[in-house]
Amino acid sequence: MTVQETTIPATFQGFGVDKPENWNKPKLVEYKRKIVNPHDVVVKNIACGLCGSDILTLKADWSPLLRNDAVVGHEIIGHVIAIGDKVTQVKIGDRVGIGAASNSCRDCSRCTHDNEQYCADGAGTYNSVDAAAEDYITQGGYSSHSIANEQFVFPIPEAMETVHAAPLMCAGLTVYSPLVRNLGTDAKGKTVGIIGIGGLGHLALQFANALGANVVAFSRTSSKKEQALKLGAHEFIATAEEKDWKKKYADHFDLILNCASGIDGLVLDNYLQVLKVDKKFVSVGLPPTKDNIQVSPHTFLHQGASFGSSLLGSKTEALQMLELATAKGVKPWVEEIQIGEDGCHEALTRCDKGDIRYRFVFTGFDKAFTA
Amino acid sequence: MTVQETTIPATFQGFGVDKPENWNKPKLVEYKRKIVNPHDVVVKNIACGLCGSDILTLKADWSPLLRNDAVVGHEIIGHVIAIGDKVTQVKIGDRVGIGAASNSCRDCSRCTHDNEQYCADGAGTYNSVDAAAEDYITQGGYSSHSIANEQFVFPIPEAMETVHAAPLMCAGLTVYSPLVRNLGTDAKGKTVGIIGIGGLGHLALQFANALGANVVAFSRTSSKKEQALKLGAHEFIATAEEKDWKKKYADHFDLILNCASGIDGLVLDNYLQVLKVDKKFVSVGLPPTKDNIQVSPHTFLHQGASFGSSLLGSKTEALQMLELATAKGVKPWVEEIQIGEDGCHEALTRCDKGDIRYRFVFTGFDKAFTA
Repeated sequence: MTVQETTIPATFQGFGVDKPENWNKPKLVEYKRKIVNPHDVVVKNIACGLCGSDILTLKADWSPLLRNDAVVGHEIIGHVIAIGDKVTQVKIGDRVGIGAASNSCRDCSRCTHDNEQYCADGAGTYNSVDAAAEDYITQGGYSSHSIANEQFVFPIPEAMETVHAAPLMCAGLTVYSPLVRNLGTDAKGKTVGIIGIGGLGHLALQFANALGANVVAFSRTSSKKEQALKLGAHEFIATAEEKDWKKKYADHFDLILNCASGIDGLVLDNYLQVLKVDKKFVSVGLPPTKDNIQVSPHTFLHQGASFGSSLLGSKTEALQMLELATAKGVKPWVEEIQIGEDGCHEALTRCDKGDIRYRFVFTGFDKAFTA
Repeated sequence: MTVQETTIPATFQGFGVDKPENWNKPKLVEYKRKIVNPHDVVVKNIACGLCGSDILTLKADWSPLLRNDAVVGHEIIGHVIAIGDKVTQVKIGDRVGIGAASNSCRDCSRCTHDNEQYCADGAGTYNSVDAAAEDYITQGGYSSHSIANEQFVFPIPEAMETVHAAPLMCAGLTVYSPLVRNLGTDAKGKTVGIIGIGGLGHLALQFANALGANVVAFSRTSSKKEQALKLGAHEFIATAEEKDWKKKYADHFDLILNCASGIDGLVLDNYLQVLKVDKKFVSVGLPPTKDNIQVSPHTFLHQGASFGSSLLGSKTEALQMLELATAKGVKPWVEEIQIGEDGCHEALTRCDKGDIRYRFVFTGFDKAFTA
């Protein structure tokens, strides 16, 4: 035993789904917890954001459900209640967050070079096999407790409210990492386009602004213009309404970050046309696996452009992000909702319809769980 | 008049094609030359390489033929016979080369930042409208003379043979630019994969080696293994024969450069899997416009990978490339062929079938043209 196991319940509780048809009807479930390894941190959850990935996972749009009591949620905030005996980065009582990754080999070149989120043996926070924990099928944060390797546990700055911290764990880090990797931490003089003003996009606008970039929001119509400007956009392009935007913005962008989850109607060619030379269109909004984008090498030619994706961010980036968010007042727009069967049903159903501006955060965990 | 027009024939001669069906039957044609602007250089041609683009253009696989006496060829070597009165970079008598671009606005941010090949108002060396020259439809180098803006005219080092210089003008620069933009001019410690050992690929292997990179050649079978190693590859992967290459080379490449012109059978997903984090798959082999690659954002996710293309290179890069080629002995493998109706027919037909290792270079221009 590497920790005082007595302080950790042997079973955890959560709101789980048995099969994809019931994706928006999670029921209270109790399940055996993961083992606690020497670098693991055990957290008693107090809040969890609802990420679009939760819905795609529960619907089995990305991959099959690996458990019949699948608990999702990977924007977790809680308090440390136990630590493995090699943990040095957090201590019992700390308020911490866990994002979409919870473990990795900690030994490969990616793990040792600030790219642990790309470890080939990494484990997702839910619906994922944790090779370093007896192949446990991981369970997410719509639950009483969570266990993660300390590399994936981020101390939350004292000044930051729990409900504002939660969505940063996945959505925030997912947009922050490609912004800093492509623009640097001082983005003054650089121009970034953000497509899609939703869970991811509303944070991308704020972080891009906080990094000092010139920020342009793209949306199909002008319905979200006012909100986009409030969120930090300096300019707004309604692509369906401004027919000549491609000409006007030719050779303009140092980065375009796609935060829209659907790719229907996303004409990649149009966006590639407005990039500067050797710049990237990065997509972090992930559609169901069956949806593809068609590209011709010719499309990319005229700007030396490239198309890519980005996965979460490293711990180093997570800590930078939290510091920047605190310093510049980056705050997710959230709707708090009581965790429970009813709350999960309502939030999943409404989020699936896009009826949320911009992020649900489950709270009231102490009322929902007895453990 | 900005130059002594008397030294320049009013009409040029070349081997031109009237319509796509006759793509491999160029006939001797005579045509009115382009005007000579103050920054233009007039060249009497002595050699021209045959580039795959010549065939795709003549077959109208990329865009319609804009003339009924279309002369292609954009790996041109010749001697300067006249210069506009503002030319400073070359002088009469110099042996120079012209690649696939021949003019640009020289004023936009791309032109003024070493990306003139990406100028939105640039003119290709053939089958292209030159806005800066009375909308002349440009004619290529299977011809007696060529005219290009001095920015697109590259002095050839004295030690370099003409037949070796010609293929560097397009093929060489096309592979050199993405290599240095992604690996830097000192690529020691970096690993690059080159797909396709042909006109582009055989130069990419040599330049990647000359830059100091660890070079891995990809080919479907091992038939070209010996040649690849001779050209500078340190390792060779026959993708159809080594079933476990993806596992063996996971997290291995800093760049993969696709030099194959066809994309049939190119499983992008396989190559993205072996990239290091945040690295690129760059395609310089251009298929017909109708061929698309299907990509899912998911494919890219696990490496933060991106897919892109690259267009030619800047003059700065062209001069660096010529210097490096001279210093390190980079030499295209060429088959010399007499320019003429017969030679053009033979070379275009054989190149279309892949029956050339690895580049045809037309010579004997003084025998073919009376001007």
